[in-house]
Amino acid sequence: MIRLPVRPRRERAESYDVRIGRGLAPRLTVDLRKRKVARRYIIVTDDHLRAKIGAPLQAAFRRRGLAADLISFPAGEGSKSRRVRDAIEDRILALGAGRDSALVALGGGVVGDLTGFVAATYCRGIPYIQVPTSLIAMVDSSIGGKTGINHAAGKNLIGAFHNPIAVYIDVDHLKALPPRHFISGMAEVVKCGVIADAVLFHALEAYLDRVLRREPEILARVIEACVRIKVRVVNRDPRESGVRKILNFGHTIGHALETLSGFRLTHGEAIGIGMAAEARIAARTGLLSDAAAERIIRLTARCGLPTAIPPSLSPAAILEVARRDKKTRQGRIAYALPKRIGAMAHRAGDYGIPVEDSLVAGVLQGPRKPR
Amino acid sequence: MIRLPVRPRRERAESYDVRIGRGLAPRLTVDLRKRKVARRYIIVTDDHLRAKIGAPLQAAFRRRGLAADLISFPAGEGSKSRRVRDAIEDRILALGAGRDSALVALGGGVVGDLTGFVAATYCRGIPYIQVPTSLIAMVDSSIGGKTGINHAAGKNLIGAFHNPIAVYIDVDHLKALPPRHFISGMAEVVKCGVIADAVLFHALEAYLDRVLRREPEILARVIEACVRIKVRVVNRDPRESGVRKILNFGHTIGHALETLSGFRLTHGEAIGIGMAAEARIAARTGLLSDAAAERIIRLTARCGLPTAIPPSLSPAAILEVARRDKKTRQGRIAYALPKRIGAMAHRAGDYGIPVEDSLVAGVLQGPRKPR
Repeated sequence: MIRLPVRPRRERAESYDVRIGRGLAPRLTVDLRKRKVARRYIIVTDDHLRAKIGAPLQAAFRRRGLAADLISFPAGEGSKSRRVRDAIEDRILALGAGRDSALVALGGGVVGDLTGFVAATYCRGIPYIQVPTSLIAMVDSSIGGKTGINHAAGKNLIGAFHNPIAVYIDVDHLKALPPRHFISGMAEVVKCGVIADAVLFHALEAYLDRVLRREPEILARVIEACVRIKVRVVNRDPRESGVRKILNFGHTIGHALETLSGFRLTHGEAIGIGMAAEARIAARTGLLSDAAAERIIRLTARCGLPTAIPPSLSPAAILEVARRDKKTRQGRIAYALPKRIGAMAHRAGDYGIPVEDSLVAGVLQGPRKPR
Repeated sequence: MIRLPVRPRRERAESYDVRIGRGLAPRLTVDLRKRKVARRYIIVTDDHLRAKIGAPLQAAFRRRGLAADLISFPAGEGSKSRRVRDAIEDRILALGAGRDSALVALGGGVVGDLTGFVAATYCRGIPYIQVPTSLIAMVDSSIGGKTGINHAAGKNLIGAFHNPIAVYIDVDHLKALPPRHFISGMAEVVKCGVIADAVLFHALEAYLDRVLRREPEILARVIEACVRIKVRVVNRDPRESGVRKILNFGHTIGHALETLSGFRLTHGEAIGIGMAAEARIAARTGLLSDAAAERIIRLTARCGLPTAIPPSLSPAAILEVARRDKKTRQGRIAYALPKRIGAMAHRAGDYGIPVEDSLVAGVLQGPRKPR
């Protein structure tokens, strides 16, 4: 037998910058022109955003002499589907996009995940730029290169790691965000405080009213704090083999709820309930104090997020979906659990803590919304 | 404006070994058991191979105590489609595959490309092993991490770079290969000689009869020579930004012919015609001597491969599809062209040589199969 080793030369690291500010469209187009990222751009957005912010961004590209098309698909989590993915591929193919093209994901998490995934597999990978317009996309999903679509069996089951070449967070986009979506984003903001930043958590407790009133100055500082956490975590663990798992706080139960609700719960709402449940799980296993768990639940509720399991969903059903979702250790589902506000529990560096189904079922059975 | 740089820690290089030998199934299962690659394996093959080699390999896995399922799809290039990709995803999901699972691509280029692509985007990437059974897959497609499916508009338009974790080339599989597929594989073998190995090319000219009779000893040496070339090239250029383009000799015209024929031409047949055409293009542009071009065409024909453009395909149609296919330089299609047998032309390190459509159309119009 002959053995021939394949040792591919290392690629240059996939570095990119996240920019946070106000009125960033001119900055974006100047940067792209200077960097010569692509010969043509296709801005991908959803039908709600198309006229109000898609068309103006396309105009800004064209004024700068950049070739830019604009396409859109129906808004909502339901579009993270094979059908819409295929449709976007067909559209950009019909527009003549090739390896010389780049996509611009203009929208919330759905637009970013879907556009990033199309970019990941179009001609074996083309560049894309994240321009998040929702709070959740700004503080979480636009950074870190996770892309994908959903499957009836679970969220993001089909996807790829594909880093954007740049992220432009324009806080002004938040002005127009519908209240329900803004509140959803607050779930990821609270999560950032819990997993890595006690100061942020305390600040949210103290100034939540001003944040919820969307005062631009305090909002920009909150977003910056969240982005710093996300960047630090993905820099240390780009492929979620270790510390990146802390970002899943609230997401193991949350994703299952989101799936089971048929996406009638928004991502943030599901994560709100998931954080409350997982804080209780952490307390029940003795990792977290009861007082800290209550503070997490109280802050989540003050944001306007739900914290109780919908009565129509049984613990068994939730556990079944969570089990399929990716994180198991010898059959036990692994959770990202806080040991105190601002720090996550780990065992020998592994932040996925396996917990018995019976304990989790007890927590899920407990505090429920009255029918 | 705040700028936060994302500098993901470098991943370990994606290294793997290619093994060439006879009767490698025991070796494969021992290695996987030792390396603890996954907790469960799903062998993916096509309907033609399922009973004869799929089931025995599954049995070998199970004898070694490895959990292994076996799934298959219809044989043929038509299966490199969205429909079959989705069906495989649904099947492995139904089998309960998760991040702890690995796929085994057992078959020719179609099985490898499709299985590798499913692995690339399942749970954002799971491991897979290449066990090529066709000559073309052994010398070319199983190595280098190119995966993907076709689109009505062109070959491999949707795909990803995703390296296998190991390649096991068992020459014994070639015994059962239908003659048409074996001859198809010879196109990639001839290509290897042209692009990088004059000694191999001369050896093929001298011993072609013995190769075509599939004498195991000489076959193993020919395959080894080809794999060495492929490994050297992909090591230097994993993402096809430079020297890897030399592997596209015969493929710019060839892919277009394959697409336009509705895959009635096999990949190797299309590449045979493509190499003949591109050798003539290289001669016409003055890069290659007429004598060398004729030797390439003669050796290709002696393998039993077609070398003339099918009369039903017009030069304009071929150029239109080739233009969509990925390789253009300021509007001109770029070709990988030999400057002599064993060495490719480049301009300042760029192996994509732009050629005017009019010159190419002249070549394509020239030698055609009589109607």
